[in-house]
Amino acid sequence: MTEAVQTEAVHTERVDFRVRPDRYKHWRLSTDGPVATLTMDVDEQGGLVPGYELKLNSYDLGVDIELYDAVQRLRFEHPEVRTVVITSGKPKIFSAGANIRMLAASPHGWKVNFCKFTNETRNGIEDATAHSGQTYLAAVNGTASGGGYELALACEHIMLVDDRSSAVSLPELPLLGVLPGTGGLTRVSDKRHVRRDLADYFSTKSEGVGGKKAVQWRLVDEAVPRPRWDETVAERAAELAGRSSRPENATGVELTPLTKTADDDAIRYDHVEARLDRDAGRVDISVKGPHNDPPADIAGATAQGAAFWPLAVTRELDDLILDLRTNETELGTWVFRTEGDPALVLAHDELLLGGKDDWFANEVLQYLKRTLRRLDVTSRSLIAAIEPGSCFAGSLLELALAADRSFQLAGVFEDKNPDAEPATITLGEMNLGPLTMSNGLTRLQTRFWGDEAGYEAAAKRKGEALEAEDAAELGLVTFAPDDIDWDEEIRIATEERSSFSPDALTGLEANYRFAGPETMETKIFGRLTAWQNWIFNRPNASGPDGALRRFGTGQRAVFDRKRV
Amino acid sequence: MTEAVQTEAVHTERVDFRVRPDRYKHWRLSTDGPVATLTMDVDEQGGLVPGYELKLNSYDLGVDIELYDAVQRLRFEHPEVRTVVITSGKPKIFSAGANIRMLAASPHGWKVNFCKFTNETRNGIEDATAHSGQTYLAAVNGTASGGGYELALACEHIMLVDDRSSAVSLPELPLLGVLPGTGGLTRVSDKRHVRRDLADYFSTKSEGVGGKKAVQWRLVDEAVPRPRWDETVAERAAELAGRSSRPENATGVELTPLTKTADDDAIRYDHVEARLDRDAGRVDISVKGPHNDPPADIAGATAQGAAFWPLAVTRELDDLILDLRTNETELGTWVFRTEGDPALVLAHDELLLGGKDDWFANEVLQYLKRTLRRLDVTSRSLIAAIEPGSCFAGSLLELALAADRSFQLAGVFEDKNPDAEPATITLGEMNLGPLTMSNGLTRLQTRFWGDEAGYEAAAKRKGEALEAEDAAELGLVTFAPDDIDWDEEIRIATEERSSFSPDALTGLEANYRFAGPETMETKIFGRLTAWQNWIFNRPNASGPDGALRRFGTGQRAVFDRKRV
Repeated sequence: MTEAVQTEAVHTERVDFRVRPDRYKHWRLSTDGPVATLTMDVDEQGGLVPGYELKLNSYDLGVDIELYDAVQRLRFEHPEVRTVVITSGKPKIFSAGANIRMLAASPHGWKVNFCKFTNETRNGIEDATAHSGQTYLAAVNGTASGGGYELALACEHIMLVDDRSSAVSLPELPLLGVLPGTGGLTRVSDKRHVRRDLADYFSTKSEGVGGKKAVQWRLVDEAVPRPRWDETVAERAAELAGRSSRPENATGVELTPLTKTADDDAIRYDHVEARLDRDAGRVDISVKGPHNDPPADIAGATAQGAAFWPLAVTRELDDLILDLRTNETELGTWVFRTEGDPALVLAHDELLLGGKDDWFANEVLQYLKRTLRRLDVTSRSLIAAIEPGSCFAGSLLELALAADRSFQLAGVFEDKNPDAEPATITLGEMNLGPLTMSNGLTRLQTRFWGDEAGYEAAAKRKGEALEAEDAAELGLVTFAPDDIDWDEEIRIATEERSSFSPDALTGLEANYRFAGPETMETKIFGRLTAWQNWIFNRPNASGPDGALRRFGTGQRAVFDRKRV
Repeated sequence: MTEAVQTEAVHTERVDFRVRPDRYKHWRLSTDGPVATLTMDVDEQGGLVPGYELKLNSYDLGVDIELYDAVQRLRFEHPEVRTVVITSGKPKIFSAGANIRMLAASPHGWKVNFCKFTNETRNGIEDATAHSGQTYLAAVNGTASGGGYELALACEHIMLVDDRSSAVSLPELPLLGVLPGTGGLTRVSDKRHVRRDLADYFSTKSEGVGGKKAVQWRLVDEAVPRPRWDETVAERAAELAGRSSRPENATGVELTPLTKTADDDAIRYDHVEARLDRDAGRVDISVKGPHNDPPADIAGATAQGAAFWPLAVTRELDDLILDLRTNETELGTWVFRTEGDPALVLAHDELLLGGKDDWFANEVLQYLKRTLRRLDVTSRSLIAAIEPGSCFAGSLLELALAADRSFQLAGVFEDKNPDAEPATITLGEMNLGPLTMSNGLTRLQTRFWGDEAGYEAAAKRKGEALEAEDAAELGLVTFAPDDIDWDEEIRIATEERSSFSPDALTGLEANYRFAGPETMETKIFGRLTAWQNWIFNRPNASGPDGALRRFGTGQRAVFDRKRV
């Protein structure tokens, strides 16, 4: 155990997910009309924490934070960009994947959280390709190993330089005793449709596969000799750009810096506030609805830019989720409240949905969808507390639908404000289609999976402000206590939660949140991630003699050979 | 660590999966015309290994082995049975689920393997309901907790006695810090369609839910007062029997004792032989095809009974898989060979498929399907070696299609037998439909998932004996070495396999074997099981202060509160 402690990377500083291109250490973002190029050129000495060098374009969370920022900015700030080329700034190497020393030295929870964020960004790359007309092209101009190849797998089209030495590979299993766990196995089989026996062989062959064989096996789409490389990449980028639905002559919306203040007890943004109760292991998150009517049309919304309420609140929620997930791992329960006028939320929703053929409205909508998906895969218990003065309507009602349990006050708080209007929730069009979960269904469909009648009964109340009894009867909230029981019920629910095994809660939630069908995305977060987490936690990988810890030491790993 | 070792249940004796009703310690099987009753009445002192008492109808692997035997015999020996009532022989308690002391004291691998077998039997119960016209009815005549309720969940219809004390519950999370991992979470959400927030609440409430609320929440189908219990169970059993397609007046086929001999180096049956190479960590499994033509018709096959080759070979394979999985955990690679005349295999297949409206032919087919599914979820690397004299055709070709890799000899062994016919494989009707994997696709469809053209090209060669080059070209085998390379290639593949992390291989195989769609069954073996394995391996459950180890000691578990 001593050795384990000694070699652990110490994450003492709070990780900040806010970054901007002029501060990137590891990526260069350039655009040339419809084609952007994201060049990975990792600063070896620029690791997020001391203790490892980011050689060979290997990455840590810091590198991934910049990639996430770039992918987001390309969507909002660059409506003209239709193809994004991801390539390497290093000679002969595309990327060596996640940094092994960083992984080996990181505690289990850090590894798992890091992989989750990496997965989310890669899903975002596929989402941009599918829903924003920004198609990602991997220009693999050198060897792509492990997470490096997994990054390429998230792109729509993979070009590999054919120079007799460059290859794509998944060496995790033979070299490190772990899986290609950030989507690798799932994308190889379910996206690239590599035959399972070839995939098996490929994933045990540490040197990988290059050239024509990589094309034959579907590992890449084309292998291009170096002399024709630049011209072929440019050609392919132009072809992909030609298929895009991105607008002509639109002006981008700048993702201006978030207003954020944080101290030990709270994190505050313009529309979102989180109060941290360390004794109770709980975060109380309050989301404010819009203060004003929405602009008259999408042009008005675009003019508001980053201040447009749906975009502003989504950015704040996104940053908060990432911050809490990474920096506040002992706060296991998040309680969501909202505050504001439901009608104004619904009016903003309506504007967005009415304009969804507009690129900006579409981007805001897709971003909200992705942020809610991030919440779905967050390993925290989620509770919604629906009180008088709240605005759980349409897009904000999704927070309650994402919660593991919801409480809606029946009546009002007689002591505090007997004249208040009772709390209501309102289903809107936003709950009936656009904001799909990663299983491809809406949260409402998932909630009523296998109960068509229950779904119909709820959906047809769209637009009605539903008080607690109605909402509970319809199955839209879990419990509807009155003000005598309210505090006690919420207290018991949160205290009980913090008395349970955090691991078992994570497993429970990861199962119950995803009833029904599975997609490549749910398979990555469910099947693949769960197996990887198990493997990460086993002595054969992470014990002092495990493969992950022994990599690079010259000593072979010692395995317990029992098959489990 | 010392404590952990001291409390481990020691599994020194080889577990034998062969049992028969007159030797059951824990179950009573009785039949009354179309209704069979399986009464669980666990012998407290009858645990498989010393160290725990099986109180309150809690179970260990020994109890489950008898249940599996009963489910199998009901299908083959009792064509007249159309409803199977599962109930308890103890007062006030249906079943308390898996025995906690057994779980707490068992090593990780034992827990995982035990849960897998339990899951397979429950899937078998659903399979009997869906495909054999034997509908399972859970007559929950007392409290059903944890695995006890999970057993009920595998039944088509759940009746709960309504007596103000009996309840169904999933107390694993609050009491033990683990999941209801033998299908519980998945069946609650995806089969019973319990709303996710109610399911969440239910799974954290250790005392469970009974009476009308259990019906309202869909946890059970009906709650019946004790005075009307017997008559209502009988009524419901008769109703379910009325829907069955089981034949009138058929005679059962007795599952006579298997001929099996075993020593340290080999396990031998009539048609299957396994040679155990402990140094190499490998098992060489040889399956013999039929020696004779099949009987003229299904009546002839039924007359052969347990000696009918497809049934005999399936029973032997089934027993071998279970034996090796449980008793030979360090033998990580299984190499399959076959021996015999492909035409005779195909002729038996044809007889079975031609008669699949016959109950017995259907049972044999379904059993073969289930046994191959057991192979798919086996955590061993599977390799097929296709040599001259083999009979990888139709049903036996499935062994090669189930393998992670297959090798087919190009040409013959010039030294050993230059005049032999080259090895061939032959696709038959059996490969194109009936033997679905748990993802709902055939192994051939899964192999060519996303490659319709590849599938069509292979499928249209049905009936042709394909030599190695053709088979490799069509993608039906992985490699086609000639006799100069053969030994070396197989040796490298198996040696390499045994040099890798056994855990990482398990994860790799569990992902690559299941491309494409997911079903409740794959969700149980993939998502749910992987999370449970992770949780089982965590100190919060299995460490000296973990919930599973502290249960019943009067001491509360101590948790690392960090959410991962």
